[in-house]
Amino acid sequence: MALILAINAGSSSLKFQLLDMPAEHLVTKGSVERIGLSDSIFTIQVNGEKQQEIASISDHEEAVRILLDKLTEQKIVGSLDEIEGIGHRVVHGGETFDDSALVTDEVIQKIEDLSELAPLHNPANLVGIRAFRDVLPKVPEVVVFDTAFHQTMDSAAFLYSLPYKYYTDYGVRKYGFHGTSHKYVAYRAAELLKQPIKELRLISCHLGNGASITAIKGGKSIDTSMGFTPLAGLTMGTRSGDIDPALIPYIMDKTGMNASEVVNVLNKKSGLLGISGFSSDLRDIEKEAKRGNKRAILSINVFVERIQKYIGSFAAKMNGVDAIIFTAGIGEHSSMIRARVLEGLSFMGVDWDRKRNQVNGQETFISTDQSTIKVLVVPTNEEVMIARDTVRLSNSQKKIDES
Amino acid sequence: MALILAINAGSSSLKFQLLDMPAEHLVTKGSVERIGLSDSIFTIQVNGEKQQEIASISDHEEAVRILLDKLTEQKIVGSLDEIEGIGHRVVHGGETFDDSALVTDEVIQKIEDLSELAPLHNPANLVGIRAFRDVLPKVPEVVVFDTAFHQTMDSAAFLYSLPYKYYTDYGVRKYGFHGTSHKYVAYRAAELLKQPIKELRLISCHLGNGASITAIKGGKSIDTSMGFTPLAGLTMGTRSGDIDPALIPYIMDKTGMNASEVVNVLNKKSGLLGISGFSSDLRDIEKEAKRGNKRAILSINVFVERIQKYIGSFAAKMNGVDAIIFTAGIGEHSSMIRARVLEGLSFMGVDWDRKRNQVNGQETFISTDQSTIKVLVVPTNEEVMIARDTVRLSNSQKKIDES
Repeated sequence: MALILAINAGSSSLKFQLLDMPAEHLVTKGSVERIGLSDSIFTIQVNGEKQQEIASISDHEEAVRILLDKLTEQKIVGSLDEIEGIGHRVVHGGETFDDSALVTDEVIQKIEDLSELAPLHNPANLVGIRAFRDVLPKVPEVVVFDTAFHQTMDSAAFLYSLPYKYYTDYGVRKYGFHGTSHKYVAYRAAELLKQPIKELRLISCHLGNGASITAIKGGKSIDTSMGFTPLAGLTMGTRSGDIDPALIPYIMDKTGMNASEVVNVLNKKSGLLGISGFSSDLRDIEKEAKRGNKRAILSINVFVERIQKYIGSFAAKMNGVDAIIFTAGIGEHSSMIRARVLEGLSFMGVDWDRKRNQVNGQETFISTDQSTIKVLVVPTNEEVMIARDTVRLSNSQKKIDES
Repeated sequence: MALILAINAGSSSLKFQLLDMPAEHLVTKGSVERIGLSDSIFTIQVNGEKQQEIASISDHEEAVRILLDKLTEQKIVGSLDEIEGIGHRVVHGGETFDDSALVTDEVIQKIEDLSELAPLHNPANLVGIRAFRDVLPKVPEVVVFDTAFHQTMDSAAFLYSLPYKYYTDYGVRKYGFHGTSHKYVAYRAAELLKQPIKELRLISCHLGNGASITAIKGGKSIDTSMGFTPLAGLTMGTRSGDIDPALIPYIMDKTGMNASEVVNVLNKKSGLLGISGFSSDLRDIEKEAKRGNKRAILSINVFVERIQKYIGSFAAKMNGVDAIIFTAGIGEHSSMIRARVLEGLSFMGVDWDRKRNQVNGQETFISTDQSTIKVLVVPTNEEVMIARDTVRLSNSQKKIDES
């Protein structure tokens, strides 16, 4: 067995999936949460059942040791030697990384240098990388960036209309996020469409608690709705997406908050939560909307409208579109949102089927056979992408070592 | 002759047009600039020739007196009694005004109350209104708002994804601007198309130093690119349009500016000027781009891309579009920009003609006869709209007086 651990480390958490490659079979998954507190929570799936333990786990290194112990103890792996690579999700690769990379001291330094662009995420991701380096020093580690897939955007797409020196001196540009997910569903959609991705113009809608839409031409991201940070673009669970930037000093003036506090409200108290007033979770909002709650209905209307407008703008950008893909929590599971979005797109050639749309979290076409634009649901799988890149880059390393 | 003065008053300026109604014939036009300084400039057209005088004009009331003296002195009007109404452009009508209004004490109070939303503009507009009240107290005055046409937007279009109380308590929403221009060109386009405006889905592109795009369905604005302020939306001469709002604290941190200073940069040093680094005027930029200046080319690319994306998003919003209208300085005069924008829209059914597009500032179709989406150039005329509303509302007042 060639096992790959796919890791997503946050400041006080560590999520993991163990995948058997190249079969892409999920062996186990779980998480460690509340790291550094006395009541840390360790969760792991054993023989399909969730096991949970509460314990004091002081840091990420201890979390990694406990995880590895559990893997052998529960005989999920025969020996730790079976783990042939560790892939880490890293949020920000800036303009430095247009692909995943094998972890070296230099790569770690570069990720550290990019922390300024993602002060909450990159340092936390690095803690995870270092913990595995300490515990499993011989196993190759690979970093997979949320931004890398979008590095193919051209300057007209990534540049803001700001003084140019903000770009050259401060790195101010659109980076885009969710790249691993957009790439996964785009390539998978091409397989399902039985067409070479090189010939396709795709719009992928990653609609989860965070949400972004990407225009993918010939397999390459050419534009995306998130921006310098994941705040921009669509209405999200708690994020505002695009607003008039002049609102920031106005809201500061009205509320007495400073600029960072306002942006914190835009990140954490806005979006569906801000409009509905009671939840950031679309499932709750759908329920309330059915009961006639006006602000629930309003938040859905705003959410849908933004998605439609981004689809329209990216169709214009590519001068047409061959397929639209829905993925992530809402994209995979809310037939209502998909229906609402698609209802407004018949002018482009979208023809869809109500019955086919009654699908929940599985790969399927929801367009009719006659539709000139195909519409698909493709459940995303960022961990498989991380595992694939980990295999690819560790193998290339092996080849260098052996030559 | 029924003469109407259309007035656009700024903090230190007063622009005027004298129109003969209902013929909509321009009798004269001109401006007073640098009001309050010792070298104020008074400009007026007499028999088609521009006359200019430098004098000390202490305030708007004096400017109005000089203007009226000049009109009789130069025999442009036989007597001031021929002036039957004065129409004022007012920037912000908030949610209070969804139409133009006859000036009363109550209306003045309301415009004053809305100054918070347009602190630079509404107070200056009021100075103009009061100056005419003092000098010509018997002539009815009418106010025409930049925002009024957009009051038909529904809540899904005008609400930001922010905490709902920012809307209810602080008036935070999309208002939109350039409404008088969008309305004028939309109605004129319907005439040229020989179709009832009620049946049309139009996208009007007002591309000047300030720029905005509006989706107009059945004669009503249903969405527009500007927002709470005229900063949002497209790349403009010096304005950034949409950016990731999280950039504001980041730029503050990098430059040491406060939030208002950053927004000032977004308003005055960004857009085409920011990217090109040398001019906010598209004519200069086109010239430099032809010589191969890379940043000039880049600024045009960004400018065009934003326009295309807004057209795409509004086409999606209306589930199709019947005609696209270009107006204002760039929209009327830059065949290059129109060509670049239209090149990317064939997927929607836009088919246009290179020869027809070689038009400069006159009403014309640039789409081919076969094009399913018509494309028109319609020179805007906000003053005619102001004069029309002034006639309509002063007449309705007369009817009330006579009844």
